[in-house]
Amino acid sequence: MAQVKVLEKVLDANDKIAADNRRLFRERGIVAVNLMSGPGAGKTSLLERVLPRLAARAPVAVIEGDIATTADAERIAAVGVPVVQINTDKLGGACHLEALAIQTALADLPVQGLRWLFVENVGNLVCPAEFDLGETLRVGVLSVAEGEDKPIKYPLLFRQIHLLLLNKVDLLPHLRLDLDRLLENVRRVNAELPVVRCSAATGEGLDEFVAWLERHAEA
Amino acid sequence: MAQVKVLEKVLDANDKIAADNRRLFRERGIVAVNLMSGPGAGKTSLLERVLPRLAARAPVAVIEGDIATTADAERIAAVGVPVVQINTDKLGGACHLEALAIQTALADLPVQGLRWLFVENVGNLVCPAEFDLGETLRVGVLSVAEGEDKPIKYPLLFRQIHLLLLNKVDLLPHLRLDLDRLLENVRRVNAELPVVRCSAATGEGLDEFVAWLERHAEA
Repeated sequence: MAQVKVLEKVLDANDKIAADNRRLFRERGIVAVNLMSGPGAGKTSLLERVLPRLAARAPVAVIEGDIATTADAERIAAVGVPVVQINTDKLGGACHLEALAIQTALADLPVQGLRWLFVENVGNLVCPAEFDLGETLRVGVLSVAEGEDKPIKYPLLFRQIHLLLLNKVDLLPHLRLDLDRLLENVRRVNAELPVVRCSAATGEGLDEFVAWLERHAEA
Repeated sequence: MAQVKVLEKVLDANDKIAADNRRLFRERGIVAVNLMSGPGAGKTSLLERVLPRLAARAPVAVIEGDIATTADAERIAAVGVPVVQINTDKLGGACHLEALAIQTALADLPVQGLRWLFVENVGNLVCPAEFDLGETLRVGVLSVAEGEDKPIKYPLLFRQIHLLLLNKVDLLPHLRLDLDRLLENVRRVNAELPVVRCSAATGEGLDEFVAWLERHAEA
């Protein structure tokens, strides 16, 4: 009988490009951090505070993902960090970033000698978690104003991240939030997930976030 | 020459079913409200406060859309309103609701004599706005904790809604939010969009929301 060749797994185009990105990051010693959250959880505000600290010790760059506007890239440029804005409404993937957009954006960034690359994904707790960008680390941001139930309602993202930044903790005295129940919901979805309580407004927790990043960059 | 029949526009399957839903709502005098927001903007909390007021005068039902969990449906059931929970992770459309899910859910609701049907979409400022459910009215919810830039960063949703509920205004004294800039960003995307400032926590603005609903139900 003739042998029939069966293609058992055709790699998804995104996975293929993500693998290329991952190889490039590894070869060049770049730590790529995929930052994901719902809209308005505070990703850009956190970056504004954290980037100058990292940049003082090693080269940093940012890729900003938004459906529209260059507002976030302008905020990052204002703290003196090289940045490229991706507007997904022109790329057919409005609700998330894909690996090809990262590969394309890298051509406009100073990759030579780069140590940290932050990718701020589109504000969306669902779709970004479904697309590998080739990143080294995945960090989720949840604002305490979003309520206790988000980890169990958006389980994929909370399962895939390596660190959760629980942001806007300065608002806790003004919210009816059951923090214990929120943390229990985090553990139900991802028992080992480290959680850093922080506030981009007051600076609380940012030392701990930077320390976590530097520890994982060495690993 | 032979005539060749050209199919100029093949209706998308979702649009076809949405049109069926819309016809059914019109025939039966049901006002269907598609409620959309990012995660944790307060859709369910607003419904908990508003449903009892509407239900005192006319029959109300709710369809809850979430990727996972029945948490929201349980909260709605607790205020005595018939509710069906859709979990999109089993329907292949995890990030939004589609018209077929609404049609299917209607079979489990008391449609006879129904006046109000609220559809709480998946918490996501992007994808839900792309899918017509056949609804009568589209209401967006934005929490003031999400910042000034959301209307211009998620323009499709803010363009498509008939009313914006600006929720959690009780938090305004504790936020560094430029409310004028937020309202200006709303107008840049949708110049005529009415905005109701409200708080599910304090009850502020809910009379105005109910009055808006009843005015538009008669139209």
